[in-house]
Amino acid sequence: VPHSDCAPLEDLAAGIRRLVDLLLRAADDDPALPCITAELDRISAELERKFEPGEPFEKMLRSDRPRHDPIAGIENALAPPLRIDVAADGTVISVAEFALPYQGPRGVVHGGISALVLDHMLSMANGGSRGSLVTAELSVRFHRPLPLFTACEIRCRQTEVDGRKVRAYGEIVVGGAVAVTATGLFIAKRISPDVPAVS
Amino acid sequence: VPHSDCAPLEDLAAGIRRLVDLLLRAADDDPALPCITAELDRISAELERKFEPGEPFEKMLRSDRPRHDPIAGIENALAPPLRIDVAADGTVISVAEFALPYQGPRGVVHGGISALVLDHMLSMANGGSRGSLVTAELSVRFHRPLPLFTACEIRCRQTEVDGRKVRAYGEIVVGGAVAVTATGLFIAKRISPDVPAVS
Repeated sequence: VPHSDCAPLEDLAAGIRRLVDLLLRAADDDPALPCITAELDRISAELERKFEPGEPFEKMLRSDRPRHDPIAGIENALAPPLRIDVAADGTVISVAEFALPYQGPRGVVHGGISALVLDHMLSMANGGSRGSLVTAELSVRFHRPLPLFTACEIRCRQTEVDGRKVRAYGEIVVGGAVAVTATGLFIAKRISPDVPAVS
Repeated sequence: VPHSDCAPLEDLAAGIRRLVDLLLRAADDDPALPCITAELDRISAELERKFEPGEPFEKMLRSDRPRHDPIAGIENALAPPLRIDVAADGTVISVAEFALPYQGPRGVVHGGISALVLDHMLSMANGGSRGSLVTAELSVRFHRPLPLFTACEIRCRQTEVDGRKVRAYGEIVVGGAVAVTATGLFIAKRISPDVPAVS
């Protein structure tokens, strides 16, 4: 795993992801495990010492940045992380491949992980990255299993703007077949001036 | 973080979770970060050396165990993990509190995380832990924000058995108010002999 010189949080998140994955493949009688746990505890204690006791809650919560979300957040080790692009027509697209930590049934991505990813990208397709949207409803249909370790394409686009109500449709396609589809209804906190009202 | 003597994988997962959380609070100019990343890489390389090259895919994938799922999997560092109990009447219950890695909007649990958790527990309420169910549809409604760092109760129960189709309802309650509700439709691979057919 090569590391850059200028993104230390991102590099450390990548290092943690590698360890999360390996843990699911390790033997439970591996005699090295308690020693590794002790090393991690020492590292964590070192990081914790840098926070002042009684540090304000707001400062501890400095984290609604895009780099921190659990889907595409490159500094959040829980995130795969997805690389998400926005096409010229506003479609939100990611080519993803899910590894062992995201498994539900044997060899298959957990259905809830598909729901998590689609919720996030449907919100983005409706401009949710501007922080001005609230999700009201998410409906997901599972058409066929989404295999682990296999590239899939996730595409979400806005389908309707009705005053403050905006809707989006999304799908996950693997091997040319639609595996999962979803629709989302979102409520804008205010009508955005750059969204054409079609109601 | 106290560690047990008999669950080394579980202890290591807990140690990784602590580090995932701290990473979201660390300063990006902390000079210790590259050194910590190097230590993790050394640990990962040590674990990787124990896998033989060309090890069969099946063996690497030995992980559809309950302890490995991304919701309640105590050995999966991505999982909060939820402790899920089944009441005498079959209701599946968890009291949970979500921390910083699960954040969507500032101070609020990511809506997709609620969907992930409900998908998992709705499946359990329909006997999905026996591995004999396929999720067909998941619908989630978001009624109010679910705050981080706050105990909530998640409850899911089976509502209908119609031949191979089984349905369940679930909700997340916080501070006495319903924050999220969900319904799920699942298809049993075969009619389970211990499920009363009410069709």
